[in-house]
Amino acid sequence: MVYIQLNERQEKIIDIVKTSQPITGEAIAKRLKLTRSTLRPDLSILTMSGILDARPKVGYFYTGKTALNFISERIEKIKVSKVKSVPVVVDENTSVYDAIVTLMVEDVGTLFVTSDGFLSGIISRKDFLKNAIGGIDLNRIPVGMIMTRMPNIIVTFSNDSILEAASNIIEHEIDCLPVVEEVRTEKGEKKFKVVGRISKTTITRIFVELGKDI
Amino acid sequence: MVYIQLNERQEKIIDIVKTSQPITGEAIAKRLKLTRSTLRPDLSILTMSGILDARPKVGYFYTGKTALNFISERIEKIKVSKVKSVPVVVDENTSVYDAIVTLMVEDVGTLFVTSDGFLSGIISRKDFLKNAIGGIDLNRIPVGMIMTRMPNIIVTFSNDSILEAASNIIEHEIDCLPVVEEVRTEKGEKKFKVVGRISKTTITRIFVELGKDI
Repeated sequence: MVYIQLNERQEKIIDIVKTSQPITGEAIAKRLKLTRSTLRPDLSILTMSGILDARPKVGYFYTGKTALNFISERIEKIKVSKVKSVPVVVDENTSVYDAIVTLMVEDVGTLFVTSDGFLSGIISRKDFLKNAIGGIDLNRIPVGMIMTRMPNIIVTFSNDSILEAASNIIEHEIDCLPVVEEVRTEKGEKKFKVVGRISKTTITRIFVELGKDI
Repeated sequence: MVYIQLNERQEKIIDIVKTSQPITGEAIAKRLKLTRSTLRPDLSILTMSGILDARPKVGYFYTGKTALNFISERIEKIKVSKVKSVPVVVDENTSVYDAIVTLMVEDVGTLFVTSDGFLSGIISRKDFLKNAIGGIDLNRIPVGMIMTRMPNIIVTFSNDSILEAASNIIEHEIDCLPVVEEVRTEKGEKKFKVVGRISKTTITRIFVELGKDI
């Protein structure tokens, strides 16, 4: 991938095509009082970059794709499935104390909570801390009693773009999203199976990798 | 500015120039069994992007500027000073309990701790949680006793690039960096004043902004 600063002539060509499309290469050359072959490199840069579209025997069109956002195109292509981490999951009957130990041992910021193997809740360091200083009996209270419960959970799917996932993290002010697969139970209920984890750490890691072109 | 994905022929031209520089356009065309005019757009893309250099009557040179990493160039330019948040700071004599309350009220993941107004430590939700379930008297123990103490703190400066900061977050497996200014005390000691905060949230927000081209 290379990037090129458009020159004045190329900007002029874009203006001509914008106002007179479809227009042939010859007609553009005439307007600029140049030969067709002088313009060839300019036209090919403009078509290769996707700003102009060339249709045989018709001419050049303006695609509307001026300010190409390369970063966005690159980020859009990164799928959640490619970058997700292993989820850390506990059953909702686990005691708060045991859940905190799991959080510590696995060194994650968020636990996903399941009931019968399906996502039922989510709980973070912040929630645990609030409860730990709140004086509840951590050994007797199950994590299911203090977690954030479905359907108030923002989820992401393997096929989502990481930009969408990151966007949800910022918009909803959360640390972590469960990556889920939708399944139907025998009773026909829609449930989520947890298959991964996308956190701010995931995003920060991708940011560094993109920046260093790893 | 436009971005162009090099095609196979352009990559071949680069290889030819690399091994046979200086080489004329004609000679390149001959090697590829193409006409000079067919190659003209390719050669102009390669020179416009700075990968090849053309000297009249000598030929093409390879500049060594191959894999232009645009994302990296863009991210490198974002300075810590531009994106830092307001730091949340407590004195090291603050009780652990009061520090946790500050953390909750300010809704941050990490507190910076100061002594005489200079950075002396850092403490995160994880540290607090560990201590909260450890059975210490949160009201009697000062935060200075359980924090991570200088010089074991990774810091960042206003003029650093955000890529450097993000890189440090990933490498050292931390959530947050204090943005500091180096000052000399009256005794001539080097100390840090805390002027900001860079967290994984900061990085995730920039990631989204870059992706959406905000």
